Amino acid sequence: MKIMPQEIIAHKRDGFALTREEVQQFVAGVVSGEFKDYQASALLMAIVLKGMTPQETGWLTEAMMRSGRIVELPEITRPKVDKHSTGGVGDKVSLILAPLAAACGLCVPMMSGRGLGHTGGTLDKLEAIPGFSTELSDAAYRKQLLSIHQAMIGQSADMVPADRKLYALRDVTATVESIPLICGSILSKKLAEGIDALVLDVKFGRGAFMQTEADGRRLAESLVAISASMGKPTSALLTRMEQPLGRMIGNSLEVIESIDCLRGEGPADLMEVTYALCAEMLILGGLHTSQESAMAALHEAIQSGAALAGFRALVAEQGGDPAVIDDYSRLPQTEQHKDFSLANETPKYVSGLDARRFGEAACMLGAGRVSTDSVIDPAVGLELLKKIGDLVQPGEPIVRIHYQDTDSLEAAEARLSKAIELSESAPEVLPLVVDRISH
Amino acid sequence: MKIMPQEIIAHKRDGFALTREEVQQFVAGVVSGEFKDYQASALLMAIVLKGMTPQETGWLTEAMMRSGRIVELPEITRPKVDKHSTGGVGDKVSLILAPLAAACGLCVPMMSGRGLGHTGGTLDKLEAIPGFSTELSDAAYRKQLLSIHQAMIGQSADMVPADRKLYALRDVTATVESIPLICGSILSKKLAEGIDALVLDVKFGRGAFMQTEADGRRLAESLVAISASMGKPTSALLTRMEQPLGRMIGNSLEVIESIDCLRGEGPADLMEVTYALCAEMLILGGLHTSQESAMAALHEAIQSGAALAGFRALVAEQGGDPAVIDDYSRLPQTEQHKDFSLANETPKYVSGLDARRFGEAACMLGAGRVSTDSVIDPAVGLELLKKIGDLVQPGEPIVRIHYQDTDSLEAAEARLSKAIELSESAPEVLPLVVDRISH
Repeated sequence: MKIMPQEIIAHKRDGFALTREEVQQFVAGVVSGEFKDYQASALLMAIVLKGMTPQETGWLTEAMMRSGRIVELPEITRPKVDKHSTGGVGDKVSLILAPLAAACGLCVPMMSGRGLGHTGGTLDKLEAIPGFSTELSDAAYRKQLLSIHQAMIGQSADMVPADRKLYALRDVTATVESIPLICGSILSKKLAEGIDALVLDVKFGRGAFMQTEADGRRLAESLVAISASMGKPTSALLTRMEQPLGRMIGNSLEVIESIDCLRGEGPADLMEVTYALCAEMLILGGLHTSQESAMAALHEAIQSGAALAGFRALVAEQGGDPAVIDDYSRLPQTEQHKDFSLANETPKYVSGLDARRFGEAACMLGAGRVSTDSVIDPAVGLELLKKIGDLVQPGEPIVRIHYQDTDSLEAAEARLSKAIELSESAPEVLPLVVDRISH
Repeated sequence: MKIMPQEIIAHKRDGFALTREEVQQFVAGVVSGEFKDYQASALLMAIVLKGMTPQETGWLTEAMMRSGRIVELPEITRPKVDKHSTGGVGDKVSLILAPLAAACGLCVPMMSGRGLGHTGGTLDKLEAIPGFSTELSDAAYRKQLLSIHQAMIGQSADMVPADRKLYALRDVTATVESIPLICGSILSKKLAEGIDALVLDVKFGRGAFMQTEADGRRLAESLVAISASMGKPTSALLTRMEQPLGRMIGNSLEVIESIDCLRGEGPADLMEVTYALCAEMLILGGLHTSQESAMAALHEAIQSGAALAGFRALVAEQGGDPAVIDDYSRLPQTEQHKDFSLANETPKYVSGLDARRFGEAACMLGAGRVSTDSVIDPAVGLELLKKIGDLVQPGEPIVRIHYQDTDSLEAAEARLSKAIELSESAPEVLPLVVDRISH
């Protein structure tokens, strides 16, 4: 029995929960074009304002997931576990985590997205490596998962078309901010990958989509509940995104920092989040039963060089130049850089590094996309010479700016001057991983 | 300063009042196409759910009115007053009221719409008269207003294009039910006519758009307040629409009943509403200061034949055959009719005649439009032989069905059998004109 789009919209407008049939008809209609764009956006706005029950959200996720090809990987015997982050600045965790988790016994069939606005994207970072391809044929993808137990690719166009359509519409109709719609978008893509379990990094704070811990927690709880209701063991870490993660922002620079991490020379904050997420993956994948044993395995994989070897294999398999690992000068780099300092006349502590503004400054340099058709410059970026809590002597540089032209340099400097806060006394350093949410 | 459509949508989504600039940009953008359909529908849904202040609604009305050509009629010295009804079943008041008001000294520059669904439209009714044209050139329209002080036409495509665009969108996105949007739609069209004052017939009940008296009152109060804030003296009558108005439903049949009314032989309920609305018009137009004197003038215009003569002139001026007035057989009529009765075994009173179902039954016969491209049959319709409070003997017919084919007859009969309620005792007859609302 066909229900008219108007009737489905009216039900949600009037605050009712949609039936499974209505949700399915909406999602199928969006893909087929029977549900017109203007009808979809009216329903999306009604969902933003009236919400969706966990049950409706589950149906939405499932219908979106089933809107295209679903990958199944029965030939893989290792536990298949992926991680998804809601997005932050300097968040290159995936590049470290995939080879690390694979070195510890998991299979990581990771499908990622591109960056937009102030947050970067995993595919853009990997493509800073000369030759690296994020598009693999289905056969090559499966072969690679069997041989090196990890792959990092973009989702092909035949997967989750409903999300592509709906996301484009939400972006231009002010209907992005809705937990049910965010859950549907994230989980439909991840669950179409054919994974056994999922770990989520839900970020909150100035540089994150969710500004407050309370909002981040609500999103994390919803994601975990919906994913679990669809039969996937899932846990989420609630992590703070006030200052950029690690020291590097920009595609080449983040590849360098990731390799440093895999070599055991990464900054503490970045390693803390990476280890915490990776430990969750090992536990959900059934390879470890305690945090301690998972952590020990992860440290061992870094110290032994197994994780770095895994990254080298990944780069080689996906067509990249593995020599970049030993020679960073083979990565794109700018000819010029400039050290940015503030005019403090006495020694002061860094008390704030506004992650969003750092992300925007990097974007202005050309590291990110202003719109979906922007071209990225992999060489540009920001290098944090100081982080929150560090002491800054008068005139001491705080950020190194890797730039290509003076216009973008000036724009980035103007943004940075508003992004950095100094104080007389040492600031309280807040914990990075705030909570763990599981079903 | 251009504001992005997303920003305007987000403001309303978050419950803020839009600025005048935002409202203007929305309306202008809808007409120019800069505000895409899917963005407009998202904003419309946010307006449905978050509302609009009277000030925003006034800005919306003004911006819509100014989206196209505005008629100005400085050459006309008579007070220019129009009436608008929110729509009912059997509501042929305009056909009687325009010549009647013109006979009493007003100019009535009436622009009307077509019917959709269970309610009829004035233009459709007039076009039942052979030759009658509802499209006049601007010059012919003005000439006619000067000579016979009345015209009944459709609004030309260059007037209020924003309403046409928005209404089409609201219809398919479940965003019709919103008092600010209804106010904007009705008043932008009426105020673009160049009138001095406006009388509104706001109907409530089973056959009306507003189901309850409370909702009707809220709409009436909003309409009057917004219109008055735009400098137009306005009053509204709150009238009941539970049973069809008068005895006829269907285009030819309603023309016949209107002529009967102008001849002084109209049914009491229809005349009561017509007189009440017309008296308001005479008072708002400044021709009378009391209800009593206005009523006396109206009765005189009927009894003297002046109102009927005015209708004859209207028909002739707009290309119709004025001989229909003396010979109803010149109007389209069906070859067949059937008297419909219920199986009551004892005498019973009519206690309910569900106006909506009567309207739907007439629509099934071909009197109305199921969709905007339906073709209307002017001949078909329903003739109420009984009204609420009348006694029905066993087997006595209640409705005469004027039909063209047995399929539509059967569909209409099935609907009618659910539309009529009989009771043992005489029902309470509720007042038709419930209240008068003015600023």
